[in-house]
Amino acid sequence: MGIINLDHISGNPLLPEVQAAMIEAVRTNYGNPSSPHHLGDQAAEALEQARQSVARLINSASPKEIVFTSGGTESINHAIKGVAAAKREQGRHIIASNIEHNSVLKTLRRLMGFGYTVTSVPVDGDGRVNPDDIAKAITDKTILISIMHSNNEIGTIQPIEEIARIAREKKVIFHTDAVTSIGVVPIDVRKLGVDLLSFAANQFHGPAGVGGLYIRKGTSIWPLLDGGAQENNRRAGTENLISIIGMGVAAQLAAKEMGARLNHVKKLRDRLLKGLNEKIDDIYINGHPEHCLPNIVSVSISYIEGESIVLMLEEEGIAVSTRSACASGSLRASHVLSSIGRDWASAQGTLVISFGKDNTEGEIDRFLDVLVTVVQTLRNMSPLYVRAKG
Amino acid sequence: MGIINLDHISGNPLLPEVQAAMIEAVRTNYGNPSSPHHLGDQAAEALEQARQSVARLINSASPKEIVFTSGGTESINHAIKGVAAAKREQGRHIIASNIEHNSVLKTLRRLMGFGYTVTSVPVDGDGRVNPDDIAKAITDKTILISIMHSNNEIGTIQPIEEIARIAREKKVIFHTDAVTSIGVVPIDVRKLGVDLLSFAANQFHGPAGVGGLYIRKGTSIWPLLDGGAQENNRRAGTENLISIIGMGVAAQLAAKEMGARLNHVKKLRDRLLKGLNEKIDDIYINGHPEHCLPNIVSVSISYIEGESIVLMLEEEGIAVSTRSACASGSLRASHVLSSIGRDWASAQGTLVISFGKDNTEGEIDRFLDVLVTVVQTLRNMSPLYVRAKG
Repeated sequence: MGIINLDHISGNPLLPEVQAAMIEAVRTNYGNPSSPHHLGDQAAEALEQARQSVARLINSASPKEIVFTSGGTESINHAIKGVAAAKREQGRHIIASNIEHNSVLKTLRRLMGFGYTVTSVPVDGDGRVNPDDIAKAITDKTILISIMHSNNEIGTIQPIEEIARIAREKKVIFHTDAVTSIGVVPIDVRKLGVDLLSFAANQFHGPAGVGGLYIRKGTSIWPLLDGGAQENNRRAGTENLISIIGMGVAAQLAAKEMGARLNHVKKLRDRLLKGLNEKIDDIYINGHPEHCLPNIVSVSISYIEGESIVLMLEEEGIAVSTRSACASGSLRASHVLSSIGRDWASAQGTLVISFGKDNTEGEIDRFLDVLVTVVQTLRNMSPLYVRAKG
Repeated sequence: MGIINLDHISGNPLLPEVQAAMIEAVRTNYGNPSSPHHLGDQAAEALEQARQSVARLINSASPKEIVFTSGGTESINHAIKGVAAAKREQGRHIIASNIEHNSVLKTLRRLMGFGYTVTSVPVDGDGRVNPDDIAKAITDKTILISIMHSNNEIGTIQPIEEIARIAREKKVIFHTDAVTSIGVVPIDVRKLGVDLLSFAANQFHGPAGVGGLYIRKGTSIWPLLDGGAQENNRRAGTENLISIIGMGVAAQLAAKEMGARLNHVKKLRDRLLKGLNEKIDDIYINGHPEHCLPNIVSVSISYIEGESIVLMLEEEGIAVSTRSACASGSLRASHVLSSIGRDWASAQGTLVISFGKDNTEGEIDRFLDVLVTVVQTLRNMSPLYVRAKG
């Protein structure tokens, strides 16, 4: 029996078409896109084709606005450190929400060691930022606002268009980390009105370790990687062409299948939520009920620990997560859950269930059945539960 | 007829074994190495296996000293910016040679905008640094010395062990850019005595866009990419596992075949040098005759332009380079050639011929035959040549 993968947020499996394109690219044995001869020309062409596919997926005005990177983390570091460096004479104040991904938070913490100050804007109980809070936080020293498009633990989608409008009025650069959104929900950089947008291919069934940064024409930003003239002088380093080709195909498919994928995962999500609410008591669904990703459910299950649930589910061949894989080395409670008001105890019992186009309703049902048993078993061993219910 | 690739320095073709391993990895559809369940375990295991292969290739004391990156450029940026940040309170003086790769030079230029000063040490006519010059340049504010192991345009190998000894005595961190050396000549980080060493997989027949940074245990350095806990908290971002697996196999093969590869390319180099000297007059072989890479020949051909030679060779199905692919967007004369005393005119007529294990003696002979004709044709059109010889 295969594994039921309900941990897509840590990385989606490659689609067959992406696999085929990457295998073809490995076999083709491309040259260096920067070489001034035929071996390089072929490679440069493949590179630009992928760039066009990605540009179309996010409706960028030009493929030139797409810079390929080694993934979401590099894109985010590039966006934040690149603007911080370019604008440092103008001001050193940055605004972010307090539920950003660690790539944003740790980058900001790093900059604080270099004289930058950060205003961390709170979120409400559903994980939404209030755009007014951002407007109020802007000073004449503010150079950057960084608010994620959607949250990787609870799925809440932020009012990005409104925030972008405020940023534009105040002439502050606006970056959004769209890593968990791209390929899952429609993203239109022009409609959103953002200056910078980070993304990673593995969130839309492309390979891990490759991604990109959308840089709206005219945005003031420095490279993170200095060196050669690649990527229009915005990101040095020989390109990871095989992975970029895979990302290009994944982007094409994501654009083409967006509607069908949305319908599919929404159906799974509804089924999952219905099952959770009917079959398990004392639970709490985290995140905004409407402004949310359709492919993720965060549920806090009282009285027991998420880690134990994950281990017991794994024995049954089901993969879920307690939180983002990037933070799995850390034992601290999730900063996202504490920001939306979950106390430490209920945060401990939180599962993140994330799915993709390859999951089936049968898998959701099987997960629910196993989960009910696992929860009951763990609760029967929990002194807290026995005391509360006894 | 296939293309004769004598431009290996821009990127070696993937070896069949590397292709097979990458294709297998694409098919396996690994999970995220950081996921706390079975899908992640498999991936984590593959990741650590590759790390061991790379560690063995450079004789690192422990695989923990290897941090995977998106290639040589990221490794170099990480090394220099990471030490600059970690040591900034102690001093802001850095020493490098004036023939470093653009990834080093442009990174240093960037740091100069943040209050760092750089001493650029000259090289002799063969492109070698004098270790005494480095010793003299060290002040109590010096935090880093960065000297490349071998040069990517002329192949000269630097006296790294001697420089490392000086750096260690003065307690200055020493980084070497070994991108063009690794897999080509034996590299032993412990014998060299370096603290940091940058490398890229495509120089030893692995994929482009992946590489690593050797960080000797105890070296004071900050991450370049902040975020998740990957790579022992030293490089955030979901790993590019497919390429890393390819690099691991390429490293294994490079270690195993080192002797045979050296013999093969040395034979090709000798044949090439003999042919050039016998068949074309008014040429100059750049770089040190002994302390040099065995897989690269830089030749300055008087009175004509390298770009024209490259174009005419390309029509005959032969790929060579005038300089590093990373700089091919730039029209300026090579900083390496001017540093070793080539004047602008002869620098213009410079070809970089670089080869690998897949090249044959027949290809060298064919190249020489075509080159003789091309040079004669171009010289006959050159007013400079006609005047000099008329």
